[in-house]
Amino acid sequence: MGELRYVELKDIANENIHVLGRMGKQRQPLPVFFNGAGVEVVVTGSELWIDVETDSDVNEMWIAVEINGAFMARQMLLPGEHSLCLFRSMEQTTPKRVRFYRELQAMNDDPKVKLLIKGFKLDGEFQKVPQYSRKIEFIGDSITSGEGSYGAFDDVDWIPMYMSASANYGPMTAKALGADYHLISQGGWGVFVGWDNDVRHNLPSVYEKVCGLANGEMNKALGAADEYDFSSWQPDAVIVNLGTNDDTSFNQPEFVNPDDGRVYKMRVNDDGTRSRDDELKIVDAVVNFLTMIRKHNPKAEIIWCYGMLGSNLNLVLTEGINKYKEKAGDEKVSFFQLPNTTMDTFGSHMHPGPKSHQNATKELVDYLRNKLGWVD
Amino acid sequence: MGELRYVELKDIANENIHVLGRMGKQRQPLPVFFNGAGVEVVVTGSELWIDVETDSDVNEMWIAVEINGAFMARQMLLPGEHSLCLFRSMEQTTPKRVRFYRELQAMNDDPKVKLLIKGFKLDGEFQKVPQYSRKIEFIGDSITSGEGSYGAFDDVDWIPMYMSASANYGPMTAKALGADYHLISQGGWGVFVGWDNDVRHNLPSVYEKVCGLANGEMNKALGAADEYDFSSWQPDAVIVNLGTNDDTSFNQPEFVNPDDGRVYKMRVNDDGTRSRDDELKIVDAVVNFLTMIRKHNPKAEIIWCYGMLGSNLNLVLTEGINKYKEKAGDEKVSFFQLPNTTMDTFGSHMHPGPKSHQNATKELVDYLRNKLGWVD
Amino acid sequence: MGELRYVELKDIANENIHVLGRMGKQRQPLPVFFNGAGVEVVVTGSELWIDVETDSDVNEMWIAVEINGAFMARQMLLPGEHSLCLFRSMEQTTPKRVRFYRELQAMNDDPKVKLLIKGFKLDGEFQKVPQYSRKIEFIGDSITSGEGSYGAFDDVDWIPMYMSASANYGPMTAKALGADYHLISQGGWGVFVGWDNDVRHNLPSVYEKVCGLANGEMNKALGAADEYDFSSWQPDAVIVNLGTNDDTSFNQPEFVNPDDGRVYKMRVNDDGTRSRDDELKIVDAVVNFLTMIRKHNPKAEIIWCYGMLGSNLNLVLTEGINKYKEKAGDEKVSFFQLPNTTMDTFGSHMHPGPKSHQNATKELVDYLRNKLGWVD
Amino acid sequence: MGELRYVELKDIANENIHVLGRMGKQRQPLPVFFNGAGVEVVVTGSELWIDVETDSDVNEMWIAVEINGAFMARQMLLPGEHSLCLFRSMEQTTPKRVRFYRELQAMNDDPKVKLLIKGFKLDGEFQKVPQYSRKIEFIGDSITSGEGSYGAFDDVDWIPMYMSASANYGPMTAKALGADYHLISQGGWGVFVGWDNDVRHNLPSVYEKVCGLANGEMNKALGAADEYDFSSWQPDAVIVNLGTNDDTSFNQPEFVNPDDGRVYKMRVNDDGTRSRDDELKIVDAVVNFLTMIRKHNPKAEIIWCYGMLGSNLNLVLTEGINKYKEKAGDEKVSFFQLPNTTMDTFGSHMHPGPKSHQNATKELVDYLRNKLGWVD
Repeated sequence: MGELRYVELKDIANENIHVLGRMGKQRQPLPVFFNGAGVEVVVTGSELWIDVETDSDVNEMWIAVEINGAFMARQMLLPGEHSLCLFRSMEQTTPKRVRFYRELQAMNDDPKVKLLIKGFKLDGEFQKVPQYSRKIEFIGDSITSGEGSYGAFDDVDWIPMYMSASANYGPMTAKALGADYHLISQGGWGVFVGWDNDVRHNLPSVYEKVCGLANGEMNKALGAADEYDFSSWQPDAVIVNLGTNDDTSFNQPEFVNPDDGRVYKMRVNDDGTRSRDDELKIVDAVVNFLTMIRKHNPKAEIIWCYGMLGSNLNLVLTEGINKYKEKAGDEKVSFFQLPNTTMDTFGSHMHPGPKSHQNATKELVDYLRNKLGWVD
Repeated sequence: MGELRYVELKDIANENIHVLGRMGKQRQPLPVFFNGAGVEVVVTGSELWIDVETDSDVNEMWIAVEINGAFMARQMLLPGEHSLCLFRSMEQTTPKRVRFYRELQAMNDDPKVKLLIKGFKLDGEFQKVPQYSRKIEFIGDSITSGEGSYGAFDDVDWIPMYMSASANYGPMTAKALGADYHLISQGGWGVFVGWDNDVRHNLPSVYEKVCGLANGEMNKALGAADEYDFSSWQPDAVIVNLGTNDDTSFNQPEFVNPDDGRVYKMRVNDDGTRSRDDELKIVDAVVNFLTMIRKHNPKAEIIWCYGMLGSNLNLVLTEGINKYKEKAGDEKVSFFQLPNTTMDTFGSHMHPGPKSHQNATKELVDYLRNKLGWVD
Repeated sequence: MGELRYVELKDIANENIHVLGRMGKQRQPLPVFFNGAGVEVVVTGSELWIDVETDSDVNEMWIAVEINGAFMARQMLLPGEHSLCLFRSMEQTTPKRVRFYRELQAMNDDPKVKLLIKGFKLDGEFQKVPQYSRKIEFIGDSITSGEGSYGAFDDVDWIPMYMSASANYGPMTAKALGADYHLISQGGWGVFVGWDNDVRHNLPSVYEKVCGLANGEMNKALGAADEYDFSSWQPDAVIVNLGTNDDTSFNQPEFVNPDDGRVYKMRVNDDGTRSRDDELKIVDAVVNFLTMIRKHNPKAEIIWCYGMLGSNLNLVLTEGINKYKEKAGDEKVSFFQLPNTTMDTFGSHMHPGPKSHQNATKELVDYLRNKLGWVD
Repeated sequence: MGELRYVELKDIANENIHVLGRMGKQRQPLPVFFNGAGVEVVVTGSELWIDVETDSDVNEMWIAVEINGAFMARQMLLPGEHSLCLFRSMEQTTPKRVRFYRELQAMNDDPKVKLLIKGFKLDGEFQKVPQYSRKIEFIGDSITSGEGSYGAFDDVDWIPMYMSASANYGPMTAKALGADYHLISQGGWGVFVGWDNDVRHNLPSVYEKVCGLANGEMNKALGAADEYDFSSWQPDAVIVNLGTNDDTSFNQPEFVNPDDGRVYKMRVNDDGTRSRDDELKIVDAVVNFLTMIRKHNPKAEIIWCYGMLGSNLNLVLTEGINKYKEKAGDEKVSFFQLPNTTMDTFGSHMHPGPKSHQNATKELVDYLRNKLGWVD
């Protein structure tokens, strides 16, 4: 091992660092807002450390480390400054490709949650990070937040350690295709309404901000509430995996929105079918969200994926997609069903486990290869 | 072995024989029109024979035998009278459950193809065939005809031996659920148009006959052209697996219909997208076919399944389904995507192989269990 | 289709026909003594028929057909002359590679069982059958006879239809390696003693005859009892899969050998362990059998495979192999354990089902690739 | 969350803590010598912390955390005192079963490596840890050290992060059987000789000490060099997975033993076969090691497992086992081959990856169930 030197992120040449996930205005220290977000570097040297700062209240930070594409470490980070050794005692001259990323989703209801990356310590040199010629954005709910991808079948707590990017169809799909990816997701949210009839909990409302999910002054200061510069990263494909919570809302009690004091409820008819009026709210939300996505991603294939926790809304979602298509004359939008999670493939609290994420990945990779002509 | 005695089908008590597949007016001999159709019996005795008569021209008959639920034999039957031993030298008193069924689809373009079951020879007794409390109808194209479910990857001939009910998601799904099933399918046909733009090749045009696919005087005499008595067998679920050939038609040359001398072609726009006018023909065909299916199956869950050979028409099909739903106020219709066939799972001439049929079965069984509350 | 012409086997040029399995002196008609034995041809033309003659008493013949490497048909053949169409209506000029083979093992206790191949009818031409550069001989018991590879889990009859070469690790292994193969096997037999303590039922006693398992005058006339000409087919590897019945014999009642009137029994000690004296009989039988195999196959890798129905005799068998090695100074002999059959992988009557044969194939193929340097 | 209180290990009632792995004389703090060793507790409360002390030089400590049987965290621990939060924000009253264990093998060549467990902090109560009625000891080399079970296929460094108990057939087998387990293993070591012909590197030489692999004064003070009290933990089964390095030694250069200045080399004959004299050294080592194991584990089934990295020594190992059996009259010893690692199942630097460990687990679990009558 040589002498370790500390390098701030801002002093690493652009070509020598790849930021995973949406980036706002601030680079030093780099705020990491989403699960799957973080940094990727290629370094020589025997040893590499990363310096980060975290904060949180109930929902502590979890991170993971990948070396040369292989999962290596996963751990909790409580509030404070951390200097973490990512590897050591490795052969000096061989380049190592290292990813450090957040496992925990953006925490909408916990404004204290923070992960900042400050810099690296190393005894080698930064090398160019090979550029990704493919880019995929995933917009979703708890499934895309990797909720339940860790944990025992019977575990029911709703806590950070069960969420991940490391056992998650989004990053898995991107890896299988050699693609860069962004995840924008929130457990319990829908395209129109959250699982509990909270109408504020819809992804479209936050999509245009850097990280509209991250609230509070601290996040604001970090740029989370800024308009996101979509031109900075134009995906080839946008995967929208929403609808699961919109579906659940029909079977949940009404919700009193504290913001307006009004009662909200997706209704069920006497015969057990869904209220058509309320279905149409979802249909409209789909139309509007696709319009918004298209506005910001003019060239992307937009693929609405759905089905990992049941496919009840297939026809409602496709109704929305078809209305959007008709209205916008947009042919680059499609619907693709993902395999359902079964007793064999559940993770914890009835969410997709690793095997379900693998199944979804297999189907989605095949679909994207065909759709985008990604043949290798 | 005791003395064998011959029993005509008509002399077997109704409860002692189960006819697989749609039945017309004639029972003695019993015409078998579809793949997967045939007979099922439970017999004691050491030996069982079946007497059948076949005819064909280019497309010879293929049949399969299943004993106690296990695949046992599969063979070609050339034109003539056949007395086939289904088992022998078995323990006398143990009941054996035996299925004899057709592997070859109804052959629309070969009116000579015939399979008649006449009777059994046995040295035991017929017992009651346990009744099926679940019933599923499958309506489809080459996929449901098991096209390519046998044969080597490179085989390209279009001949009977590559088709089956024995390696086919339809019968596999029924078996996994303990359900009785009917298959009504034809390779190359669509919901609106055949793969080659032949507009006569749509399943709705034949659905209401006993076997509208079987042409000619001989089939007519057997009752194929009669109106089918839907009340005789009301399925719990109707699976429509159509759309694959409608999709292909857009990329095929125009077709001159010999019946009216007119030219037909599903058109592609200059930008490579599908003609909206032609898409709407499929949409309308879906609406009309669902209306027809509902008329005849008032209580069934109707599930449009699609995707085993690509999912290009997902949005066109769901547009049709949604229009039908809106128009009919019918909530018992859904769309369910089946897993695509990949390089690992192709059979012969780029059709689903056994592994693809197994994959589809797995997903469809899970879906049906949830949809119909079939929990065991 | 052109005019069919009949060609006797003897009139087919040697390079245009490949005989599967051990061959005796007679080629016209060709006696087929073992499961997996038969003929392979490559023909053009639209149609191919095979003419065979069969005989049997209780144990009827079963055969299978493979086209271009894909399983196509499997059927019972009762006593008589049969002209079987193997394919028809195929593209005239494309060569088709066709295998016709016996599913039923040599039937030691049924001297009437016969399968003779007489000739082909075709409208095309015979082409050269590509030569196999790799050869494997399999010597075994019911496992190698494919016993239970067909049939339902609960089936317990001991009849021909449950045996096969088509769902059998031997032919599967050969196919995966592009190798020619011979099977020499008999259900219930051992290396020293049969499952029921019948000491006459050991494979070494029949190994040196063309088909020492086939008894009676008819088989004798066909050459079954002749000394086998080992020089005619020298395998690269000899797989001995024996021991399962030797193991069972310890838990079975004594057997009175009708040939000598003496009582035979592999004994168990009071503490439940095997009698050492009786273990040594197996050890000696292993030494002697390996000596015999080596004598006739001077260059082959000899691999004792065992374990598909338990591995109780691992140490007894390896004791024999080690003794043989020491004595003979032979380094080209090894022991390789195959994966056990479990509740998930049983076929009928507690024998390996298709999944178990696939598991064994996977391991054995890897082993043979490494052992013999078969890298492609 | 309530107030956290600190409890030293020594103050936890015996029934409320389960020590994983061999224990020496010292309990406070508890030295953790082997991979897979550590502690298991069942606690109520919302939060649990563990206090540990580590030291190391080149080879840093790695640990893993399992909650309710599910893998949750894995991380590096550099030298120092650590207070690690194992879970937080969980439902107060529900008992959580938690394992904290070492991923890194005992490091024979790094006497500074240390892991001491001091105590827990919690806001709940310790509950009884359900007792294990089954116990398995695994003795092995790099395979049992989980070498390569993490890491990318191309990774070749020999460093701690690639080793594990979390992706290791030993703990996996124990978990599948609900058994307690001990691992005693060292990468590169054999039953007679290390991979590099270092004759000091054999497991028998260290087996009788608490942790004979851990050198130096510090480890001595912790009790590593003490005689192990075998009576404290009598396994039902002892799995010996050794031979892979003994086999490699034949193809490696000679080794000069610094302890005696002599040259050691397992020799190969001119024809490429192994020197019989040197094979016999392994045979004798097997006999002696089995004698030693039996002495200390009078009632255990001893199972020699081998084959995850080739099965070249099958006959040499079984020769030794058979000699031991004969000599000792011991019938409770067997040989069981594990499935080989293939291109699909390698982890890093050509060692078994997770999939290979899973394959081995599947076979071994089946074997142990049968051998020990562990039927549930």
